[in-house]
Amino acid sequence: MSVTDELLANNATYAAGFSGPLPLPPAKHVAVLACMDARLNVYGALGLNEGESHVIRNAGGVVTEDEIRSLAISQRLLGTKEIILIHHTDCGMLTFSDVDFRNGIQDETGIKPAWSSEAFEDLETDVRQSIARIKASPFIPHKDSVRGFVFDVATGRLNEVV
Amino acid sequence: MSVTDELLANNATYAAGFSGPLPLPPAKHVAVLACMDARLNVYGALGLNEGESHVIRNAGGVVTEDEIRSLAISQRLLGTKEIILIHHTDCGMLTFSDVDFRNGIQDETGIKPAWSSEAFEDLETDVRQSIARIKASPFIPHKDSVRGFVFDVATGRLNEVV
Repeated sequence: MSVTDELLANNATYAAGFSGPLPLPPAKHVAVLACMDARLNVYGALGLNEGESHVIRNAGGVVTEDEIRSLAISQRLLGTKEIILIHHTDCGMLTFSDVDFRNGIQDETGIKPAWSSEAFEDLETDVRQSIARIKASPFIPHKDSVRGFVFDVATGRLNEVV
Repeated sequence: MSVTDELLANNATYAAGFSGPLPLPPAKHVAVLACMDARLNVYGALGLNEGESHVIRNAGGVVTEDEIRSLAISQRLLGTKEIILIHHTDCGMLTFSDVDFRNGIQDETGIKPAWSSEAFEDLETDVRQSIARIKASPFIPHKDSVRGFVFDVATGRLNEVV
């Protein structure tokens, strides 16, 4: 049995206790942008319930064009106003360099990605520059509450980057 | 009190019952790519626990360059092998056209985004073309298990797209 089949069996249990549908716009008018890391359970760590917050995630919790797209749709069409950015300790993005990653792919496949891996060397510095990317975008209307945090995978605690 | 402050108070409760750290690589060797929709609690809907799966999310659960970046890092550096794609019923991406969205931004800000909104007209068709984008990428090594689903926001059930 594949992992996918195992998770589908879990879904049957979830659906048996499910009550829906809820409204489409997030009830708490907030969007969370976090790393894809398996140890960062965004609903758990923030005490979110179904229907309350958009959740955007990628390798690193970084801000590229696609996160600007998601945040623009979140704020312009679905009424969110606050943004919470989350990086975390022990992140994979701290363990390699962009040049090595892209050269490694070229060595294996013959093709070097045209995109950056977005690897970074310092968590807090990258949270700050991610906030700066959002603040610099002309497509995000609500920027009064854009706050950034580092999730500690040892303690489960969010520490704000200032 | 802002919503962000409210969620930080929830985090203190979460951290009080937290035990970590877990290993960095996802224990179930799987990556989930899902829509950012607030009603889709990926950990709940798949019965995932902390440490088991990468979770990548964006507006629509679509596959753009940034999702290829995240999936490449997930598989090449952190050992995942299966991919689960999740779109959902009542999706915001079904409610507008790309042209209208981008023209609306231009009307408000004077600038038309150079990126597509990735809006789509049919859920199952877009799941299929998202799978096709992954299968066409030279940067994703493991493609034997790339399966796509539509989450029903009324029932909580995942229905496979074939």
